[in-house]
Amino acid sequence: MSSAERQPLIRPEEEIISYGVNVADGTGSINNEDDVTQESECRTHCAPETVEVGNLNLLSSKFESLDYDTCENHLLLDEERSKGYKFIMKKSFARWIIFLLIGIFTALIACFIDIMIEVLSDLKYNCLQFYVDSCVWNYCLVTPYLLWMVLNIVPVVIGSLLVTYLEPVAAGSGIPQVKCYLNGVKIPRVVRIKTLLVKVFGVISSVVGGLAVGKEGPMIHSGAVVAAGISQGKSTTLKVDLRILDYFREDHEKRDFVSGGAAAGVAAAFGAPVGGVLFSLEEGTSFWNQGLTWRIFFASMVSTFTLNSVLSTYHGRPGDLSYCGLLNFGKFETIVYTFSEFFIFILMGMTGGLLGALFNHINYKLTVFRLRYIQARWLKVFEAAMVAALTCTVGFTMIYVMDDCKPLGQDPTKFPVQMFCGDGQYNVLGAIWFQTPEASVRSLFHDPPGSHKVLSVAVFFVGYFLLSCWTYGLSVSSGLFIPSLLTGAAWGRLVGMGLEILLPGWKVDPGKYALVGAAAQLGGVVRMTISLTVILIEATGSISFGLPLMITLIMAKWVGDFFNEGIYDIHIQLAGVPLLPWEPPPLSNNIYASGIMSHPVVTFNAVENVGRIIDVLRSETHNGFPIVDQQCEDADSMKTCGTYRGIILRSQLIVLLQNKIFNESVEIWNPKQVSIKMFWKAYPRYQSIKDVSVTQEERLFTIDLRPFMNPASYTLLHSASLPRVFRLFRGLGLRHLVIVNDSNEVIGIVTRKDVARFRVWKHRGRMGMIELMISEKL
Amino acid sequence: MSSAERQPLIRPEEEIISYGVNVADGTGSINNEDDVTQESECRTHCAPETVEVGNLNLLSSKFESLDYDTCENHLLLDEERSKGYKFIMKKSFARWIIFLLIGIFTALIACFIDIMIEVLSDLKYNCLQFYVDSCVWNYCLVTPYLLWMVLNIVPVVIGSLLVTYLEPVAAGSGIPQVKCYLNGVKIPRVVRIKTLLVKVFGVISSVVGGLAVGKEGPMIHSGAVVAAGISQGKSTTLKVDLRILDYFREDHEKRDFVSGGAAAGVAAAFGAPVGGVLFSLEEGTSFWNQGLTWRIFFASMVSTFTLNSVLSTYHGRPGDLSYCGLLNFGKFETIVYTFSEFFIFILMGMTGGLLGALFNHINYKLTVFRLRYIQARWLKVFEAAMVAALTCTVGFTMIYVMDDCKPLGQDPTKFPVQMFCGDGQYNVLGAIWFQTPEASVRSLFHDPPGSHKVLSVAVFFVGYFLLSCWTYGLSVSSGLFIPSLLTGAAWGRLVGMGLEILLPGWKVDPGKYALVGAAAQLGGVVRMTISLTVILIEATGSISFGLPLMITLIMAKWVGDFFNEGIYDIHIQLAGVPLLPWEPPPLSNNIYASGIMSHPVVTFNAVENVGRIIDVLRSETHNGFPIVDQQCEDADSMKTCGTYRGIILRSQLIVLLQNKIFNESVEIWNPKQVSIKMFWKAYPRYQSIKDVSVTQEERLFTIDLRPFMNPASYTLLHSASLPRVFRLFRGLGLRHLVIVNDSNEVIGIVTRKDVARFRVWKHRGRMGMIELMISEKL
Repeated sequence: MSSAERQPLIRPEEEIISYGVNVADGTGSINNEDDVTQESECRTHCAPETVEVGNLNLLSSKFESLDYDTCENHLLLDEERSKGYKFIMKKSFARWIIFLLIGIFTALIACFIDIMIEVLSDLKYNCLQFYVDSCVWNYCLVTPYLLWMVLNIVPVVIGSLLVTYLEPVAAGSGIPQVKCYLNGVKIPRVVRIKTLLVKVFGVISSVVGGLAVGKEGPMIHSGAVVAAGISQGKSTTLKVDLRILDYFREDHEKRDFVSGGAAAGVAAAFGAPVGGVLFSLEEGTSFWNQGLTWRIFFASMVSTFTLNSVLSTYHGRPGDLSYCGLLNFGKFETIVYTFSEFFIFILMGMTGGLLGALFNHINYKLTVFRLRYIQARWLKVFEAAMVAALTCTVGFTMIYVMDDCKPLGQDPTKFPVQMFCGDGQYNVLGAIWFQTPEASVRSLFHDPPGSHKVLSVAVFFVGYFLLSCWTYGLSVSSGLFIPSLLTGAAWGRLVGMGLEILLPGWKVDPGKYALVGAAAQLGGVVRMTISLTVILIEATGSISFGLPLMITLIMAKWVGDFFNEGIYDIHIQLAGVPLLPWEPPPLSNNIYASGIMSHPVVTFNAVENVGRIIDVLRSETHNGFPIVDQQCEDADSMKTCGTYRGIILRSQLIVLLQNKIFNESVEIWNPKQVSIKMFWKAYPRYQSIKDVSVTQEERLFTIDLRPFMNPASYTLLHSASLPRVFRLFRGLGLRHLVIVNDSNEVIGIVTRKDVARFRVWKHRGRMGMIELMISEKL
Repeated sequence: MSSAERQPLIRPEEEIISYGVNVADGTGSINNEDDVTQESECRTHCAPETVEVGNLNLLSSKFESLDYDTCENHLLLDEERSKGYKFIMKKSFARWIIFLLIGIFTALIACFIDIMIEVLSDLKYNCLQFYVDSCVWNYCLVTPYLLWMVLNIVPVVIGSLLVTYLEPVAAGSGIPQVKCYLNGVKIPRVVRIKTLLVKVFGVISSVVGGLAVGKEGPMIHSGAVVAAGISQGKSTTLKVDLRILDYFREDHEKRDFVSGGAAAGVAAAFGAPVGGVLFSLEEGTSFWNQGLTWRIFFASMVSTFTLNSVLSTYHGRPGDLSYCGLLNFGKFETIVYTFSEFFIFILMGMTGGLLGALFNHINYKLTVFRLRYIQARWLKVFEAAMVAALTCTVGFTMIYVMDDCKPLGQDPTKFPVQMFCGDGQYNVLGAIWFQTPEASVRSLFHDPPGSHKVLSVAVFFVGYFLLSCWTYGLSVSSGLFIPSLLTGAAWGRLVGMGLEILLPGWKVDPGKYALVGAAAQLGGVVRMTISLTVILIEATGSISFGLPLMITLIMAKWVGDFFNEGIYDIHIQLAGVPLLPWEPPPLSNNIYASGIMSHPVVTFNAVENVGRIIDVLRSETHNGFPIVDQQCEDADSMKTCGTYRGIILRSQLIVLLQNKIFNESVEIWNPKQVSIKMFWKAYPRYQSIKDVSVTQEERLFTIDLRPFMNPASYTLLHSASLPRVFRLFRGLGLRHLVIVNDSNEVIGIVTRKDVARFRVWKHRGRMGMIELMISEKL
């Protein structure tokens, strides 16, 4: 209460205080107290020279923002004036068509992945089964073991080579990258066709290679790439520009399509159209909009429809879209549950949260290790090969050692291995290992009670948990959903079997507990709730079991969040991506725009000299330049820099320079010569300033920037609080926010990193705010 | 193209043009061309003196906005400074608890409504059945007819009296009101406890009274009221202030809770937790936020859980939460469908769109008639009684005339009426009529093939279509979902029966077509897609049928939107509510803030005279007043009004005046005397300026407004375009947006109505923009 006396109630309004960092007072600890001393040397909150590997509290300076705000310049006005409402209708129609195509192509790619994996895996396990069964009595078991190893290592190495040497951004599931993209961060190369190709063949390789991976994440990423590709009518990889749909060549439009693509990807991956929409909303879309959501829904629906049509035909039941075999995790008949079981579900949810947090912690440590020691490309491929070898070794050892035999005919497995079992029996662990992880999930969900021994499932759980933990983060294309579900299904089934032993009179359905365990484990790892609930409901066709799944997932999230963040967020933080959270940090109303903005600002005059533009673009790395009445003379002092007029982007300036739109040589009122199409054509990979060449004479020319700048873009007063800056920035998806003083003179600029630097942490029941540093080393 | 020459490319930046209205050029027609001439007399785009009843293109001036933006004044800073992160954790925990309570209480209210309706309806139809069956051979059928009429009219009149005389805002389903509230419009009395009570007893009366209504809409509205009530810890109706949770007394927080309440209402009404979340998103929430969505999801889940627990106990199966009887529309076993049926579903979707548009058109005409001629309260009650009488007459006539008999034992109806049927048979139409509409929907969904004659279902469809159309808009508490579903189920079943006749070899499940028809009809009327799909999936437990439902609903929406808007939107437009759409109108970049703002603006000095504040508040109706350096002298000219400093609300000024926070008498730095709690206490029903009394001496005092105003609230330049104004306004949920000139001087203010005035219309494949007038008569 006494703080009111310490600080004056009236905030300084005329005077701009040049303090660098205002730490919110509160009970939270602030880690980087050396920031203030840094300030004097390094104006943009840079990190110290040496960056500790694995620091989660750094932002990388290399990420640029997407721009969700429309540049309402005179060219756009001209364009609108010449079009009229018919064009709006056409554009709206084109949008629906594109979402239709996104749905179809995403599903076709998913079908391709599905069928390829199925065919190749069948070949592989068929061959392995033959050798195991023929060798087991000939004492040549080392042959199938070595064969298995070769059949694991070869595809994995191929996949890893593709990813490591051709397109490293295709590594992993792609969900973190898509999430960042939808949040508004430009992740280089993430939506290119090359990435798509590497991703598709990469994921086929890693699943066929027997790694503990799933195909779902990569399918979601594929959907995003398909969306970005189709909506733009051009591909730089393929060097094709169809010259259609150029009116969608804006970050704004492209991001909408990509969120539809991600939803279509989920829909195709799990056969879950509603889950797809919710995934896109929960994990991605920052901008809620009814119209957009309908289109996303449409794309998801088309995707599911296409997938089911193709797969039902492939499975020999053309047109039968209600065929159970289309459900990813197999059809559950109505699952019966009672009130008292909710306590078990809650406990299982908490266990899932704990195990998920453990998984994330181990994986974090491992990733740090990788960042430190596994940098060379060949090492990455080697690690992938090693894990492939280990996977088959673990599998083989389990089958060899564990003597869990069951009579044939119970289990829907395709390749029952006899191993040391008697005639007419098969090795249960062999059945689990000799199929894709997805099929193993189905087995654990649907195998009748008594199919497994407790010990074999327990060993399988521990082994698979560690394997999948090591696998995620390898330089291969790999999803995390299926391995998490499989691990969870294993311990969930253990719970079911335990209950059966504890409560002999009680009729326990172990498949039900396997499902709950799978949900809990996955929820504990990725910390999604709504979309995951719906995805699991849709992928098992069991609507009545929604409530227990929800409760399990919420518990898993709560318990997991107590210890650390979701796996995707950990990886995003490790990469130093300036992801904006959903809400401004609490208790930060005493941090002002003047404290977080970058200054001084490089500005341009409304009519600017070509030479100066080129010099500035060459010497500065900024991407947005305010346009002012008259420039400040002493840029290093905190003096004001002229009345704000508008803002222009580096990319726009480069297009202007390349097209030589100089006052002296071009009649800029001629829309044939100068139109918005000029900018659309250059989108999205604008050239560098180094590629611009002007003659010495042209350097003396001028450009009138006013028709091209964004006039009246959003600005804020220097006395605006951080939450206010945050809400404007996040709510409207800005890239640059000009900060002005009371007389509307430009005094600073706020970019994504300036806002993302303030991060709230929650850990073991405590919370606080931390100010991140920005590093160029990350 | 030549337009570029007509208008200069550089927009005027120094000069403020005082044009009133800028009509976007394009091909769309603009209806009200007389607006420009109006401008000279009526500055705020007022409508002409005589307002045509039923005009959809007027906005009422009586609606105020909610304020989603936080007022970051010094009191809030003080409050934050004295709290710290522990308080943030506490607040977050309190939020979860409140959402828990919202879920529980909403479900309990829903249970109460459910059980009351069931018990009372059972009594009623039991009694009727007895009289019908005993009178049919005694030629005294007029007795049950009259009895039925009495049993219809009495409850309906009670319900109508409650609604008409006690709380007119409780009429109808409440969904439009909740939608407006969540959009940010303050609908008076919509979330009061009195409204809740009238709503609950009103809906029981109207359903028991046999009207063509459902209980779902009112349940959703109830959830919203419960949420608003619980979250505030006070009720003005009950004159209780618990003095807890006062930190949630902001429009911002309250609106979040209300969206959770609406979701919990849907969850309780249909047993559809995911549908609830999606409903809240699709129809309501303007501000997408992951954390909020999780809490909404939690409330929905708790609501479903509570409802199912109570109802399973009531139905004698305590704890059996997977009991099929809990599904609102009965359990569908896996519905088989093939590719070829999609064409039928698409055609049915289109039919639903057509019928829905017809329904909306008739209802619109009827509503206009009501607005014109049925104004007196007694007339409204009389109309309700008349419809009640008509409903029973229609029903009785159908049962009497149509001779559709089936053997007993096929139909799960509770009260089979024999009528003129042979022994061991029952009258099919009697079975449909002698139950609540919801039970009738179940019958049409699940009655085995061959249960009905084509003619009787056809007659029922036409009768019920017209009846439900007349019923919606009566002065009773009534939902629209169930009657629409019932109408749709009727014609859907007809389609199924038709197919059976046309394709004799084909095994047709008429229940499946009834479900599709129901979806199509409801979709055609309300034009929701995503949430409705999920609600129907959850209420029938048939996940595999999601795809056909989605396609049907999207088709119904597209076809319906071709003709008119959804029923809720029509009623919202009739009431002249300034609802903000999701996106700015297209092609409006040439309308500038200076053209849409209200001006001149009444401003205050930073330290203002008490007398002047009182005089201004008494003479002006505005709710927000910019605070400036020095006031403009000539308020009528377009001169600037001093440098912008902040904005203060009428309600804040009144609280200041009432608490006599004058510079001369209060030490405002003392947080015990002056704190944010003062404002929380007065929220939400601030007193009128008339209730403020100050002495003549106090009138000479001054108030320092700076600690209380919202400093650095969002402003825009006069040269900002309409889309830019719109996005800021909508995206951040503002109530006032101050427009400044290049020197940051206040020149105007934009409120919700100024933005909502620009409405896009789409009709029969054409679109355009219309500028609405603002009327004080509506």
